[in-house]
Formats: sequence, C-alpha cells, structure tokens
Amino acid sequence: MPIPDPIAIRHGDRLALSRALTAVENNQPESRELLSALFPFTGQAHLIGITGAPGTGKSTLVNQLAKNLRREGHPDHPPQVAIIAVDPSSPFSGGALLGDRIRMADLAGDESIFIRSMASRGALGGLAHSTASFVTLLDSAGFDLIIIETVGAGQAEVDIASLAHTVLVVEAPGLGDDIQAIKAGILEIADIIVVNKADRPGADNTARALRVMLEMAQSQTSGPQGKHISKDPCVPSTSAKPATAAWDPPVHTIVATEGKGVQAVIEDIQRHARYLKGSGLWRQKEATRLRRDLEALIRDTLVNQWQQRRDQDQFEQVLADVIQRKYSPVEAVEKLL
Amino acid sequence: MPIPDPIAIRHGDRLALSRALTAVENNQPESRELLSALFPFTGQAHLIGITGAPGTGKSTLVNQLAKNLRREGHPDHPPQVAIIAVDPSSPFSGGALLGDRIRMADLAGDESIFIRSMASRGALGGLAHSTASFVTLLDSAGFDLIIIETVGAGQAEVDIASLAHTVLVVEAPGLGDDIQAIKAGILEIADIIVVNKADRPGADNTARALRVMLEMAQSQTSGPQGKHISKDPCVPSTSAKPATAAWDPPVHTIVATEGKGVQAVIEDIQRHARYLKGSGLWRQKEATRLRRDLEALIRDTLVNQWQQRRDQDQFEQVLADVIQRKYSPVEAVEKLL
Repeated sequence: MPIPDPIAIRHGDRLALSRALTAVENNQPESRELLSALFPFTGQAHLIGITGAPGTGKSTLVNQLAKNLRREGHPDHPPQVAIIAVDPSSPFSGGALLGDRIRMADLAGDESIFIRSMASRGALGGLAHSTASFVTLLDSAGFDLIIIETVGAGQAEVDIASLAHTVLVVEAPGLGDDIQAIKAGILEIADIIVVNKADRPGADNTARALRVMLEMAQSQTSGPQGKHISKDPCVPSTSAKPATAAWDPPVHTIVATEGKGVQAVIEDIQRHARYLKGSGLWRQKEATRLRRDLEALIRDTLVNQWQQRRDQDQFEQVLADVIQRKYSPVEAVEKLL
Repeated sequence: MPIPDPIAIRHGDRLALSRALTAVENNQPESRELLSALFPFTGQAHLIGITGAPGTGKSTLVNQLAKNLRREGHPDHPPQVAIIAVDPSSPFSGGALLGDRIRMADLAGDESIFIRSMASRGALGGLAHSTASFVTLLDSAGFDLIIIETVGAGQAEVDIASLAHTVLVVEAPGLGDDIQAIKAGILEIADIIVVNKADRPGADNTARALRVMLEMAQSQTSGPQGKHISKDPCVPSTSAKPATAAWDPPVHTIVATEGKGVQAVIEDIQRHARYLKGSGLWRQKEATRLRRDLEALIRDTLVNQWQQRRDQDQFEQVLADVIQRKYSPVEAVEKLL
C-alpha cells in the first residue's frame, strides 16, 4: 500500500491517517519520510498519558474523559480528541483478542474521537519510538488532545507515560497487595492520581494510602517537577529546575462507569496544562521527549545497520560455539563486532 | 568493591554470589570477565519463569513452590533453589518500596533457598541481558532450580519468561475484564497455567475460560512446541520442529496461601522438564535463549560504543534544531550516524 500524502493527513483525512499509522506500525521504510514531512507541524497537542494496573477501569475512564473533553471549548469548534491504546501484545497473534477495541465501541458514534490501538508486538526497544511516531502523526493531523492509554505497569508502560505532558495514574481499591510494588514504581510519574471504583469498599483507604505514598515520594525529591525519567543511560538528566511552585499531584476518587468525579479530573488536566505552560515545564518536557525519541531512533538504527551488514554464517557459527560453551556470549560479541 | 573470585562462586560462597549479582546489576565492566569465566559451567539448571498480572498471588505461589521443591530429590541432597524476582522499577528510588523482598521473608529461614530481587531500573533493552547474566551466575553456582518471577504483564515480562524452560502463568478469578487483554498476550507463552485463589467465586469459570482460550490458541498453531518467541526482528524463528507429541498446557486451580494444589503443579513442572529433555526441546530452548542473549548483548554493545564515540556538543546542537522543528528526528539521526 502506498504511503499517504502528508497534505491529506494535515487536512483531516481520517483514512489517510489510519493508513499512515499502519505504515508506521509496520515500520515501512517510506513512513520515515512521511514523519519527516509532518514533523514541522507538530508541537500543538496536549499529550495525556493514562496508566495503571489491570482491573482499575482505565478504559472506562478514557471513554469518559474523551467524551467530556469534547464538550470543552467553543461549541462550534470542540477539541479534537485522539486515543492511542497500547495493547499488551501477543507474541504470535499480533494483538489482543479482546480488550480495548471492544470496550471503546461506546465512542464510535462520535467521529471526532479518533481511536487507535497499537500492538506492542515486535517492538523490543522500538515501542517508545512507535508511540512517538503515532503522536507525530496525530499532532500534525490537528488533534488538540492525544490520550495515550497503556495497559499494565511494566517498564515499557512507564516509558510511554513519560512521553506525555500530563500523566494520570489510575488505581482501584482491593486489587491485592501485589499492587503496592507497582504503585511504588509508577506513583512518581503521576501528575494526577485517580482512584476509580470509589463505590467499592476500601476506596477511601486507597486514596489515603496514595496520599501518604505521595508525601513520602515528595520528601525524597524537591517536588514532582524534580522527577526526571532518565532510566536510559543515554539520556542525561535535564539540569535546569524551574523556579516555580511545585505541582502537588491531586488524588481524585471517581466512579468512571457513572461519570462521577470525571469533570473534576478534566479540570485538573486543564489546570496542569496551564501550570506546565506557565512554568516553562511544557517546553522542558517536550525537549526531554524529543531527546528520548532521538535516542530511541538512534538505537534502532544502529541495530538495523548492524543486522544488514552482519555475516549470517559467521553469526550462526559463533552462536553454535557459544551453545557448546567454547566461549561466552561476551567473548562472542567481541568476535562479532 | 572488587569483583568476586569465580571459584568462590562455584564453591557455593553466598556472599561472593551476592556481590557478583550486584556487580552485574550495576553493569560493572569487570563483571563481564566473571561471567565469561563462569559461563562454561552453566547449562545444568532448570529455569522456571512465573508471570501473570498483579494481584494474582504470584509471590505466594513462588514461596510455596520453592519450599515444596526443596523436599523433592534425595533428603541428604535436596535441590538447590534460587529465586530471581524482577521488580517493577521506580524511576527515581531505584526499586520497589514494598513488594517481594518483604513477602519473601517467609523463606528466609531456609538458607538453601537463595532469593534475589532485580530492579528493572536502568534496563531499557538491557533487562533481558541482566536476567540472563543472573541466570549464568546462579546456574554456575550450582542451583538446580532457578525461579524467575516477573511482576506485571508487559513486553519485558514476556521476554524474561521466554528465557525459562518452563513458564507458569498465574491467573486469579475476578480481576476484571481488563485482564482479558493480557491473557491473550501471555497465554501463548504458558507451559502450565495456574488459577490461584480457587476458593474465590468464579475460579471455575476462569479455569474454563482459560481452557477455551488455550484451545483457540492451539488451533492457530501446530501446538505449543510451535511457539517461537521471536518478537525481536534480530531473532530468526527456529525452524526445526520436533517430531514428538505436543505439550498440552495443563490448567491447575490452587489456593497458594494454603498450599492446596501446589504439589500437582510441581509434578507438572517436573513432567515438563522430562518432556523437554525427551523431545530435544530442552536443547532447542537453550539455543534460542543463548541466541537472544547474544543479540541483546550486541544491541547493548552497539549503543555503548556509539555513546562513547559520539560528539556530545554536536548531539546537543542537533537536538536543539529538532526541538525548533528545523528538521525531524529521522533527519537528525541521518546527520548523527
């Protein structure tokens, strides 16, 4: 299939956009040109990451947020909303059997909400770059708000969430103490915390525990603006700290299925955007995001270049020697590179 | 801290082993030599991966399995069991606040069960190699069974589980339909499926649904031995298929907190090891594992080499140009490489 025309994408052609997203997902070489052509027109969208453990009702919240966000702004020009749902992948079917595609059907009536799943399949190290490319396409297509929903709580999810300007972490009461371990990992990336299923027992306790954990986390740093998602050794920490007041992540209790509390979350999303712009952090986050994207792209390119020039027979021979314990993987790499 | 002597590790010196694991985790350059020295003594251990969504009670099951596995074999020479728990990472604290370290305390009385957490922090793309290195150290130290527990259900967890000879996927009833999406992704890597918390309502339904999903998955492939975890474009699918009967992943319902059903799981773990050895799949899995480890190491080395030789000023200038939309990340990479 030919790569769509960048002008069609910028003019709001949804079919062209869908095809471009597929080309990016499949890593078609021509998609790089398209991304380059559209890149100058990016930088407008508010990127909202939504993450949390399975079973917290993230997708329901995403539905509600998308519908409610559409009602903001001028009635004649409601904001354009896009959703990227990152699926946990299936190693051999290439996507989820069930999952977000179905649950998102609720939104299908509103043509201005564009929904796209992205399989995380085939993306060892490339997932961050694929998401960044999706964002480039949607941003250049004129979407004002791009919601990136990630299912799960692994490293990849944390990375994706860190692409966003505003990160919502969704929790729910009663998911078992296994969750504690995950909270520790993802609370620090949260700009807004949402305790969903607040009609269930334990919701208030969960919210209270989260507030305590947030305070603990903040006492360890100079505030949430001091957090730097530079797990990647390639990425030097951004050094400048803004001289503005810190952002205290609010903790909301909501019932997403009934829409209860969703409007207050939206107000905080908007307040967070104003905070970022006013403090200079918006620009700083964008710089960090582009730095990470660039690094990810360099990694992918280095590996691809090596794969193209490697001697397959030699590689197989070296591997056979490693399997026979003639030498170790480390020694094998020395031979191969 | 100096790198421990490989002979001390092989002779069962636990302190030396712990220090070696830390050196590997911190990616100390000298640890590569140690790994090379120990690599010829590996290949004996049975690697058991345990994965599943948060809240399923994986850690409790791991505790029970470790304790029960110790009772197998000759009473004078019970099997040596090691547990590697891969933590979801905290971007800034470097590890989980709570989590496995605490819950594993139950095992601390038994000195022959060696427990080690590994933070997934700092391991963008390097996690698979770190785990492989942990396995090399533990295998050469004489552990007969190495249990690798991963929390979560992301790509990284699937990758780690694929290092194992035998993969257990743990489920629990009533975790919400969000789980469905994850099941689709991880069921295909399961050799044994465990529905924990079988005393809760819905456990039988969960087990039944899992059996149906397994049948669906198997009808798509030639059987579970046909599954190849080659999401990584570097890794060509292994081509040879064994001419033995397929392994049908059994579905167990257990109550891990009470130890109910755990012995039957252990019998299936042992049966799976016999199946792998009898069919030649044991050797094939090891070949795949070493291939992946080699590829991961090559990727890490390529990126490290590039980082060392790159011109930092030029990189920052190019990044600044990208931020100003003078050119795209793709064009920037062309300039830089």
